[in-house]
Amino acid sequence: MNSFGINYPFWREIPVQPYCRVNKMVTAKKWVLVKQFVGKPKESDFSLEEETIPDEVNDGGVLCEALYLSVDPYIRFLSNVMMKPGDTLVGEQIARVIASKNPKYAVGEVIRLSSGWRSHTLVTDVTQIDTMPELGDLPLSFALGAAGVTGLTALFGLEDKLKPMEGETVLVNSAAGAVGSVVGQLAKMKGCTVIGFAGTDDKVRWLTELGFDHAFNYKKVDIDEALSMAAPSGVNCYFDNVGGCLSTQMLQHMHRNARVLIAGSIATYNDIGKSTGPYLFEDILKKCMSVTGFSIYDTYPKWRDGEAQLASWIQQGKLQHRETVTEGFEFMPQAFMGLFEGICTGKALVKA
Amino acid sequence: MNSFGINYPFWREIPVQPYCRVNKMVTAKKWVLVKQFVGKPKESDFSLEEETIPDEVNDGGVLCEALYLSVDPYIRFLSNVMMKPGDTLVGEQIARVIASKNPKYAVGEVIRLSSGWRSHTLVTDVTQIDTMPELGDLPLSFALGAAGVTGLTALFGLEDKLKPMEGETVLVNSAAGAVGSVVGQLAKMKGCTVIGFAGTDDKVRWLTELGFDHAFNYKKVDIDEALSMAAPSGVNCYFDNVGGCLSTQMLQHMHRNARVLIAGSIATYNDIGKSTGPYLFEDILKKCMSVTGFSIYDTYPKWRDGEAQLASWIQQGKLQHRETVTEGFEFMPQAFMGLFEGICTGKALVKA
Repeated sequence: MNSFGINYPFWREIPVQPYCRVNKMVTAKKWVLVKQFVGKPKESDFSLEEETIPDEVNDGGVLCEALYLSVDPYIRFLSNVMMKPGDTLVGEQIARVIASKNPKYAVGEVIRLSSGWRSHTLVTDVTQIDTMPELGDLPLSFALGAAGVTGLTALFGLEDKLKPMEGETVLVNSAAGAVGSVVGQLAKMKGCTVIGFAGTDDKVRWLTELGFDHAFNYKKVDIDEALSMAAPSGVNCYFDNVGGCLSTQMLQHMHRNARVLIAGSIATYNDIGKSTGPYLFEDILKKCMSVTGFSIYDTYPKWRDGEAQLASWIQQGKLQHRETVTEGFEFMPQAFMGLFEGICTGKALVKA
Repeated sequence: MNSFGINYPFWREIPVQPYCRVNKMVTAKKWVLVKQFVGKPKESDFSLEEETIPDEVNDGGVLCEALYLSVDPYIRFLSNVMMKPGDTLVGEQIARVIASKNPKYAVGEVIRLSSGWRSHTLVTDVTQIDTMPELGDLPLSFALGAAGVTGLTALFGLEDKLKPMEGETVLVNSAAGAVGSVVGQLAKMKGCTVIGFAGTDDKVRWLTELGFDHAFNYKKVDIDEALSMAAPSGVNCYFDNVGGCLSTQMLQHMHRNARVLIAGSIATYNDIGKSTGPYLFEDILKKCMSVTGFSIYDTYPKWRDGEAQLASWIQQGKLQHRETVTEGFEFMPQAFMGLFEGICTGKALVKA
């Protein structure tokens, strides 16, 4: 629980042993925030630092080495509320245990943890390690995507909040992203008409392959025309990952009693000052909409079951998952900055 | 159900008999919308017209004469979506039956109906008449206020939507208005800390008399300072009657998981074009708020019980009600326009 009352179960919670008896040393790397982002993140905001970690693990602890690291737009969002210059960038990773003094974690085991942009993490309190989902023969990295937090965001955002019913119209933006692509597929499973907006023709093609009923390149179409055509009676459920101007326009196409879930707001994360648009209070009133902000971290007790369900759907071929993988820990900032250029399809990851 | 899919149970639903056998004639008056409002309603937007109504009532019908007519900000809001030039202004009234061919309605009986700004209404289908609440010795006009629709808006907005719990902080604006003043009192009954904003010092004094914990003149205080003082941990429930700039500021003072109910949006009803302010999607996300538009007409089956409860509280002295009454049907437009000048305390009415 940070000073904003926001409960993020893992980040910045993992105590790093300040000293332990040394056998040999591991040279670890971490990406540090040089100064608070102003506008779009840029290379000079990040600094790659080396730290020497003793591989002598405390009793009960483990030392692990990152395999895959997640980059997500929310890191930009959180940077304002829970990071200060000098902090290691926050985020989730899949890692392999390379030293262990804990019988629960053997050397070689793969774990998931939110230790930030670190090549190596010395975990002194293993309760902070997040159990890997049962992936079967799926790639490990899926535990950071459709079988992990982004999949859960789609699943619980739909099931707990939007609750779309068969025959209803579901709208999602950033629809070829890690969350949006799962939202659309799950809504199709529920028998909904699904409308997706994405930012390239390739992404739009993929959405069509995924079974979206209507997919649009928001950079090329007239949003109002597209929605008037695709949802002539209005949208019942709107899963919003974007916010700002696009969402404002989309809110004009809601059905009475529409439910809107805000799971992300990438359009305004990089704002310097506050960008403005029409007041929406009257629109929300007119249609008796509900607009709800959603944090997946409020659903933590249900993650294990949710991830099992998602992994099972992927294994059965019911849920498709794509990744955009950047090779090399040293390119973490580039992978992250790419999120704001719309260059990723599916889940954006770094392979360490 | 009008073309916007909005279900207003009474308005424009009352068929007026085009012809019936005449004994003698009643000269009735009605206020007609001359042209769609542009900006604030002004005198030239209204026209007082006379119509001759035969007092020969059809079998099963009644003829009634207005006693009190309600003027409400929502009429401005609805004018855009359900009125056209030449239409009689919409609204509720308390009326006395002056001719009847229906055994359920004796001459002299007082009824409530939404026949608009009419001095006389010939009701051919009495299912459109709204039963008066049991007022006991309360004034009849209370059936248009705290024991009627505005009271119900406060009651069900709180009970069904905001669901404030004992010890939570409830914020309401337009707090000395017909809805807001009831919201604050009901929230006090529930053991909440209540903060109200109103637009004159006299109104603020009244709020203090009503038991509001904090009452502010929004024209005189720094909103941020006032809310930081009155709700240092943030507001749990925000009952919004205003919208626009004021609500945007208030939304910055919400607690995590705050519930916001939009019951009115008077700040923007008179906008020419759309006025703008900061995008709020990210704020809603950050605090995981829910923001819901509310129409009392969605709760119709519960009105009778709700009105009985409200009337009982008023009779017991637990709920105070004030009215600002304009005398004379010919001053309907002035009473209505006064709403946008903030000159009314409590419920604004016209005594015919």
